[in-house]
Amino acid sequence: MKREIFVGRVGIGGVHPVSIQSMTNTAATDVKGTLAQIRLLRQAGCDIVRVAVPDKTALAPLRQIIAKSPLPVIADIHFDAALALQAIDAGANGIRINPGNIGSNEKLKGVIRLAGQKKISIRIGVNGGSLEKKYRKAGLSLAQAMVRSVLDKIKFFEDQDFFDLKISLKSSNVRETVAAYRLIDRQCDYPLHLGITEAGTFFTGSIRSAVGIGSLLLDGIGNTIRVSLTASPVREIKVAREILRALGLLDRGVELVSCPTCARTAVDLITLCERFEEKIADLDFPGLLKVAIMGCEVNGPGEAGDADIGLAFSRSRAFLFKKGKIVARLEPDLALDSLYDLVCAAAREKKHG
Amino acid sequence: MKREIFVGRVGIGGVHPVSIQSMTNTAATDVKGTLAQIRLLRQAGCDIVRVAVPDKTALAPLRQIIAKSPLPVIADIHFDAALALQAIDAGANGIRINPGNIGSNEKLKGVIRLAGQKKISIRIGVNGGSLEKKYRKAGLSLAQAMVRSVLDKIKFFEDQDFFDLKISLKSSNVRETVAAYRLIDRQCDYPLHLGITEAGTFFTGSIRSAVGIGSLLLDGIGNTIRVSLTASPVREIKVAREILRALGLLDRGVELVSCPTCARTAVDLITLCERFEEKIADLDFPGLLKVAIMGCEVNGPGEAGDADIGLAFSRSRAFLFKKGKIVARLEPDLALDSLYDLVCAAAREKKHG
Repeated sequence: MKREIFVGRVGIGGVHPVSIQSMTNTAATDVKGTLAQIRLLRQAGCDIVRVAVPDKTALAPLRQIIAKSPLPVIADIHFDAALALQAIDAGANGIRINPGNIGSNEKLKGVIRLAGQKKISIRIGVNGGSLEKKYRKAGLSLAQAMVRSVLDKIKFFEDQDFFDLKISLKSSNVRETVAAYRLIDRQCDYPLHLGITEAGTFFTGSIRSAVGIGSLLLDGIGNTIRVSLTASPVREIKVAREILRALGLLDRGVELVSCPTCARTAVDLITLCERFEEKIADLDFPGLLKVAIMGCEVNGPGEAGDADIGLAFSRSRAFLFKKGKIVARLEPDLALDSLYDLVCAAAREKKHG
Repeated sequence: MKREIFVGRVGIGGVHPVSIQSMTNTAATDVKGTLAQIRLLRQAGCDIVRVAVPDKTALAPLRQIIAKSPLPVIADIHFDAALALQAIDAGANGIRINPGNIGSNEKLKGVIRLAGQKKISIRIGVNGGSLEKKYRKAGLSLAQAMVRSVLDKIKFFEDQDFFDLKISLKSSNVRETVAAYRLIDRQCDYPLHLGITEAGTFFTGSIRSAVGIGSLLLDGIGNTIRVSLTASPVREIKVAREILRALGLLDRGVELVSCPTCARTAVDLITLCERFEEKIADLDFPGLLKVAIMGCEVNGPGEAGDADIGLAFSRSRAFLFKKGKIVARLEPDLALDSLYDLVCAAAREKKHG
């Protein structure tokens, strides 16, 4: 088990569930816009938000953002230790720095000292794209070089008696990223922040993140995640939640299982499933509900019966399942509404019973 | 290394690259529509196509489809051994059956015998949703049960001197699926067909497939893949290719690396990247080209310099990189066109030089 740290009220490591982070992309001086985006992120399921602090003009707005943010705020700082000190002073619940670019060791010590006094955690974020040249030695893979770099940095923090760390080793190469996290996971007990950096646009980036972050989480590696997309931060949360859900690590909402269509499918399943997803988009299901919608009699009854609630079509009929038992035989046209009613009833049951 | 088998001219296992499959969802009797879909699939990058054969009316159309298909065709058959025999007779390059539902052992022997005579390969596809009850024993995980089931089936085929097999162990549960493939990978040398079955709609299914298939491929498990989506088969290919590309297993096309935007980003990177993706959508790059588009000076120069061709923005300038060296300093407005020109030039160079 990893050491437990906190970003505001959100625990990371220890027995805490995997948390989801994102980063605002509003202007650093736009308090209103940034807060609006943070509220949207929270609504989408974000646990922790990161805000870049590019220069001094961002500090006064940062203080206001932190004061009103419904989520714990991590200040992201590069190149300037003085900014880090001032961001901590502004009330940041955590900071993210790359110790390799923050300035002299003395300056870094000052940052660590203040973070210790304020009892906030620090993410040491090593990125393949900005790795110091001295670690890029012949014979070392990028993953090994990133791990050496971060181990040196961890030692520096430990020498200052600072242990409220989380670690990230991001690279735009999925294999190198996974290799780096697998290596560091065995070499320290600090919680790990997972991400594929520079992952790309919404589609490409979602796939790359799902492969990289998913592979690691599958083996129990990773305590908090951020899906980086060249897209709206809210979409990052959507992808992050779906990755967690795929691995049974998200315990809220409706999980829809549906079959690829084939020549056996007698109904327009693609449209049916999309309509069902739209219908349940705003349903706040208090727990996890597995729903299956299946188009034929090959895997249909099996999957539909395994789900909490299932719908399986044959050529002329639809069969509605609840907890493995057929509860209704229906005309296919009526099936979707009946399924939705059953899901809503299950939500009411769960809430009140 | 896995045993080498063939589906038509496409090799699976051995030293062959991971191939991509999909399945038509046109009506089984619609020869013209099915062939049109197969052509679209091929254009999208599909290597092998599967066609469901739900009943006897599908057999004559199947024969015509196979004769004209630009891709090797696998006939997908359930419940009826006679259909399997006739599909082989119709020229199928491979068949996919679930030996658990195809009928008596004698009937199965007949199918195996004919496949052997015609020298075609068979996929033994065990699905969690249709696993025989006898394997669902207390104390066995679904993964263990699927593996026991398939090992029994493999033995049956081997007893008939048939070895041109590939194996799939699909389930809608990502963890169980990965666990099952990891288990079977160590227990036989037959090539493995990977997929997450009933993965869901385009978005959900893409993420679930990327996590499951990606995790396995990352560790060298899997020889051919099919992304199952409740969506158009062509979109399945798009996702499959992106999963392979994320792991460096697809050696064609432009791989775009781009940063998530943040308060440091001075240009509209989301729009820029989307426009670049549109511009290159039809570019047939003969090899792999890594292109980075980065919004700021933190990771920008590193990632842009690591890529074959890169573009990094600062507040007021854009820097164009080729093979790690800055080749132009540009006004941000001109950067995208210059980048595109450089990519096209690289494509011409690669083709002719």
